[in-house]
Amino acid sequence: MLSLDVRPIFYVIGALLSVLALAMAMPLVADLAAGADDWRVFAVSSALTLFFGVLLMLMNRTERIALSLRQTFILTTAAWVVVCFFAALPFMFSAQGLSVTDAYFEAMSGLTTTGASAYLTVSVLPPGVLLWRSLLVWLGGIGIVGMGIVILPFLRVGGMQLFRSESSDKSDKVVPRAADMALGFGWVYLALTFICIVSLRLAGMPMFDAINHSMTALGTGGFSIQDTSIGYYQNPAVEWVLTLFMFLGSLPFVRYISLVRGDYGSLWRDSQIRTYVIFTVIVSLGLAVYLFATDRLSAGDAIRHSFFNCVSIITTTGFASLDYLQWGPGPIALFFILTLVGGCTGSTSGGIKMFRFEILWLALRTQVNRLFSPNRVLPLTYNGKPVDADVIISVMSFTFVYIALILIFAVLLGMTGLDYTHAISAAATALGNVGPGLGGMIGPVGNYESLQDGAIWVMSLAMLLGRLELFTVLVLLSPSFWRR
Amino acid sequence: MLSLDVRPIFYVIGALLSVLALAMAMPLVADLAAGADDWRVFAVSSALTLFFGVLLMLMNRTERIALSLRQTFILTTAAWVVVCFFAALPFMFSAQGLSVTDAYFEAMSGLTTTGASAYLTVSVLPPGVLLWRSLLVWLGGIGIVGMGIVILPFLRVGGMQLFRSESSDKSDKVVPRAADMALGFGWVYLALTFICIVSLRLAGMPMFDAINHSMTALGTGGFSIQDTSIGYYQNPAVEWVLTLFMFLGSLPFVRYISLVRGDYGSLWRDSQIRTYVIFTVIVSLGLAVYLFATDRLSAGDAIRHSFFNCVSIITTTGFASLDYLQWGPGPIALFFILTLVGGCTGSTSGGIKMFRFEILWLALRTQVNRLFSPNRVLPLTYNGKPVDADVIISVMSFTFVYIALILIFAVLLGMTGLDYTHAISAAATALGNVGPGLGGMIGPVGNYESLQDGAIWVMSLAMLLGRLELFTVLVLLSPSFWRR
Repeated sequence: MLSLDVRPIFYVIGALLSVLALAMAMPLVADLAAGADDWRVFAVSSALTLFFGVLLMLMNRTERIALSLRQTFILTTAAWVVVCFFAALPFMFSAQGLSVTDAYFEAMSGLTTTGASAYLTVSVLPPGVLLWRSLLVWLGGIGIVGMGIVILPFLRVGGMQLFRSESSDKSDKVVPRAADMALGFGWVYLALTFICIVSLRLAGMPMFDAINHSMTALGTGGFSIQDTSIGYYQNPAVEWVLTLFMFLGSLPFVRYISLVRGDYGSLWRDSQIRTYVIFTVIVSLGLAVYLFATDRLSAGDAIRHSFFNCVSIITTTGFASLDYLQWGPGPIALFFILTLVGGCTGSTSGGIKMFRFEILWLALRTQVNRLFSPNRVLPLTYNGKPVDADVIISVMSFTFVYIALILIFAVLLGMTGLDYTHAISAAATALGNVGPGLGGMIGPVGNYESLQDGAIWVMSLAMLLGRLELFTVLVLLSPSFWRR
Repeated sequence: MLSLDVRPIFYVIGALLSVLALAMAMPLVADLAAGADDWRVFAVSSALTLFFGVLLMLMNRTERIALSLRQTFILTTAAWVVVCFFAALPFMFSAQGLSVTDAYFEAMSGLTTTGASAYLTVSVLPPGVLLWRSLLVWLGGIGIVGMGIVILPFLRVGGMQLFRSESSDKSDKVVPRAADMALGFGWVYLALTFICIVSLRLAGMPMFDAINHSMTALGTGGFSIQDTSIGYYQNPAVEWVLTLFMFLGSLPFVRYISLVRGDYGSLWRDSQIRTYVIFTVIVSLGLAVYLFATDRLSAGDAIRHSFFNCVSIITTTGFASLDYLQWGPGPIALFFILTLVGGCTGSTSGGIKMFRFEILWLALRTQVNRLFSPNRVLPLTYNGKPVDADVIISVMSFTFVYIALILIFAVLLGMTGLDYTHAISAAATALGNVGPGLGGMIGPVGNYESLQDGAIWVMSLAMLLGRLELFTVLVLLSPSFWRR
């Protein structure tokens, strides 16, 4: 059996729960201000969460927190599972109470910045619950940015070792220490959110709506406080602002720090960002031309709705400005593919992520070239760094497991009675932390309320796996992980 | 520009066309014997094919045929494209004439041992055309066995370099020379076909039907001479015989040679065969239990139909004993996944193939173990041979491109108006050289007659790509292939 010191794991989880409990003060205040009775829900949830959080911290105090590789793997998964449970408490306790299954799903959907909702209608919810949903996305977003830059490269999952050196490598010394870096991200994130709120206000959105949508745009989570998502506002200015900030949320945050430090070329020098921008523009423009050419929309509307909804899906946000499933089978297939793509690594986006497609493309090109020139040795480089076979195999394994998991989850969802389109798109959208699926029920203007409990749990698991880059969770299934 | 000596390429294609012309004598004789007027079609087609074949040979005679790597790539693809065109002639010229598009599809479907048909009804066709379809599958089958053992490992596509040494490696010296080996395969193939014919006759099938179905079973092609495929006969004995011979067609032929030479343990020592047998039995038994437990079939019928149809899809044959799409969404999803799997390499089967799943599994397991034990070095071996990073990347690239191509072809098919289920399953079934798709129109009791011309060409291309292990064709798209 494994002799594992669980104290540091419990301690960190306790600390995270305490932060969560403090965060519950925000919706509590919002409910009090609006005179909604629901504030008690947050008071109780916060107290409960704080109690367990502090208890865990007190009971597991250690001299110094130094985590081994195994402990880090266990901590990462365990933290998400436990924190989501406590984050779900307000959803269970509130007057519009969800079942344990649905509440857990809603919390997981928020913290993984997915944005798929188990609520049939959200517009009737008290402000506290609405704010809590947005806040979970926002907190999950900054959590994942920190994790994607500090923890995952260390765990070397899915080719993330490529980004390992970014914080230590002298040639690309962005911020020397992890703590500084985390603080830096926090400020950038906060500043961007603030600018987004102001911009949305200027575009004509009410204050409460602006706060919520800014949080879910930057977190690329896509929870809306309106049942018809952003389509409710029928406001092009709002859509363009959100298009911009969703996109900003999907760029690698480490580049913002370079930007703040005056290195303005930093963004464009990053191969991942270049490819990502070019891809997004080409796809959005292409769809706009298609929509205009097939007489579905006027030229202006075609550009507006194409960019908004493409960016929404590519960044894995999941807002909708209208029901794009009405655009016919071609665009629907496109949206399915976009569901797989995802944003940049080190952002709040999910999905397979752009750098993996770049590595895959490099590897395939080399592969093909070597077939007819077997003796030529072509060293692979990415962003000026050498890419060895280990990284290529990691990236390919990730992509392969990603697709296999979509199939497996689709089969599991199919067993609960979903048809193909629903099952496959629900699996893909959950694993990619996107949000809306294809098919009327779970589409951009739909929700997951009608799904059976089994399906809801499968979706929660898929969101967790996707958010933790698959392998962080999958290693726990390996018998030899627990041996020794 | 590339200075390429095309003479050996043309010469080999000429030789292949001459063989094809001679093969047309069989349906000619069949039509004459049955008194069908259609024999003229074969006389004309044969003359035309022979003329061009001999012409190409005479005009491109060289001292000695020695092909470079590039020439082999070009030859392999060009040969299939050209031979299919001439093989399609009888379908165009016959009284039930197909369009050029459909005829080319039918020929490609036959020679790639796919077995998808563009004929609305086949039972009304004259014996010559029916025999020609079966013969194409049979010839394609032996062609692909030879290619899979002699040419593809040499081209190192999709990890096939693993099998490169099989013909030369002293520790596993099966047959020393390629020519001997090809001859050996020919005899084994012929013998198996003959035994299958006799068995089907004993099971009660008429002679002509037995000949045709033996050819398409061994070739894992799945063309039937009945509109409802094997379901027409309602004969369990026939189904079990075909189940056996489809399965034999999907095993690596190189093992049969060992078997003939008295090495009876050879089959079971091959890791690929072991995994494949276990997989097939588990899946078929599992489905049988499901069909029985859900009261769809009696215990006996459940086993019989489950084994027949699972083996038919796994071996990429495509026969059907009934319309299994009536079995509900679970089994349909299973059949979709089986469409991807495929048989063993070095057989007449298509699909991703079992050894790739084994390599993927080995690589993933190592990948996961290395995440938490980064310092442990685990050498990978497969069938007792070391597997290096190069092979793993090849296999992963293949699988990845395979899935990407299914998506790309599905989008192209979707553009011609097919819905998702039809588009994705048609793409998968064509690329895997399986035959039947999912969805009523193109299902096990359907055909591809109703598809638009564009879709038919996409399907033909997909069949070709799948049959030539993708990369053999894809290298031709690389600009640097043509440079130098």
